[in-house]
Amino acid sequence: MSGQLAVVGLGPGDGRWLTPEAAGVLVAADAVYGYGPYLDRVPVREGQARHASDNREEGARATAALGHAARGAKVAIVSGGDPGVFAMAAAVCAEIEAGPEAWRALDLVIVPGVTAMLAVAARVGAPLGHDFCAMSLSDNLKPWELIERRLDAAASAGFVIALYNPISRARPWQLGTALERLRRHLPDATPVVFGRAVGRADERIVITELGDAVAANADMATLIIVGSRETRAVARPCGAPLVYTPRAAAGAST
Amino acid sequence: MSGQLAVVGLGPGDGRWLTPEAAGVLVAADAVYGYGPYLDRVPVREGQARHASDNREEGARATAALGHAARGAKVAIVSGGDPGVFAMAAAVCAEIEAGPEAWRALDLVIVPGVTAMLAVAARVGAPLGHDFCAMSLSDNLKPWELIERRLDAAASAGFVIALYNPISRARPWQLGTALERLRRHLPDATPVVFGRAVGRADERIVITELGDAVAANADMATLIIVGSRETRAVARPCGAPLVYTPRAAAGAST
Repeated sequence: MSGQLAVVGLGPGDGRWLTPEAAGVLVAADAVYGYGPYLDRVPVREGQARHASDNREEGARATAALGHAARGAKVAIVSGGDPGVFAMAAAVCAEIEAGPEAWRALDLVIVPGVTAMLAVAARVGAPLGHDFCAMSLSDNLKPWELIERRLDAAASAGFVIALYNPISRARPWQLGTALERLRRHLPDATPVVFGRAVGRADERIVITELGDAVAANADMATLIIVGSRETRAVARPCGAPLVYTPRAAAGAST
Repeated sequence: MSGQLAVVGLGPGDGRWLTPEAAGVLVAADAVYGYGPYLDRVPVREGQARHASDNREEGARATAALGHAARGAKVAIVSGGDPGVFAMAAAVCAEIEAGPEAWRALDLVIVPGVTAMLAVAARVGAPLGHDFCAMSLSDNLKPWELIERRLDAAASAGFVIALYNPISRARPWQLGTALERLRRHLPDATPVVFGRAVGRADERIVITELGDAVAANADMATLIIVGSRETRAVARPCGAPLVYTPRAAAGAST
């Protein structure tokens, strides 16, 4: 019997975003690995082993799951959102490259999911309706200077910017500095969306403008979308404005 | 009775990527609008009206659906992938902004989905594992010069690049020109993934290098991922290499 490792995206908090493929793979798994709060979202199946770990132990979690699969089990690792976006799939690939030759022969399946920026965007309209980028603001794994260079490049070239991992206790100043940096390139009126815990009971969506956006709007569970010069906020009689980026760029012939 | 307009992402071709939320909204709809091939993926429900239109009639489709919802019906518009990424959600928002005041009061729901780049990435590993951008290569709605500027900015700042709408009969030369442009910034060995019709019976995934990437690898149903300098292709004993972008950038302290 040969093992399998599945890296499974759960989507953001709401169970209605868990795809049938992900649900099926999770039911079939002999063992499930993941960060505790993500594991808690997987329905318990009798006889299925569960291995919770801390959210900063991606490498160790990946090697444990790979070793387990290499012994012949069907193993799943869960990620919130999509596993390929700032999540477990890259960690698993890196451990496969660094690990024993046998791991490269493993049956590896990546199960995509709805990533947070898509769910946050859906709550407010279509801010990602035109060219956009996704960046992690964490400088744990890259130098801060590189993050600033990417913010400059993205904002000045007109990409809408989705910011993952905007802030944490160990990284308190980075988000404020990033917003300040973006104000060099973009007008104060540029729409900014703070989407916290989207799909969960404690979801909170705040729509503001770049001139008023402050780091206090965000915590570890927040995904931020900073518009481009083309992004619009359309007032509505009830509720929040509709935020969207037109499909046509200014200067287009149509 | 007040109407509702839902803009629903079906995910890429495979029905196992249709979220439970999307399935529920589609069952509840009085009428479904969409590009014919997407509509064909929605299970038929007796009494539900269907309005198929051509894939270049987004504006007309949006206004028809908005008008229908404004008369009190529960209306759904379907998009492949995620409706907020180069799809119907931005078209609907634009028509709401331009249309009668009553449309702003409509109950508008956007239902996110798995967008093509996530599904293609999952097939090959984790090429979007670090900072990345998504661009449409169509110059129908923006000038070609702007596309080139964004390609330059994204490639030189180290973003992995997902290219939507790479080629069509009316736009035959743009993809080749874009690949040539990217070769100014990136080594010939940079991994490139062509993902055609992902999740459908006629899916075809081609992994190549930037130096060998040609427009003939793509058609209208193809999503292309061009790696950054950090993206790696790891050979495996069976099947295709594993393509991933490490979470840690070169120069990071950890």
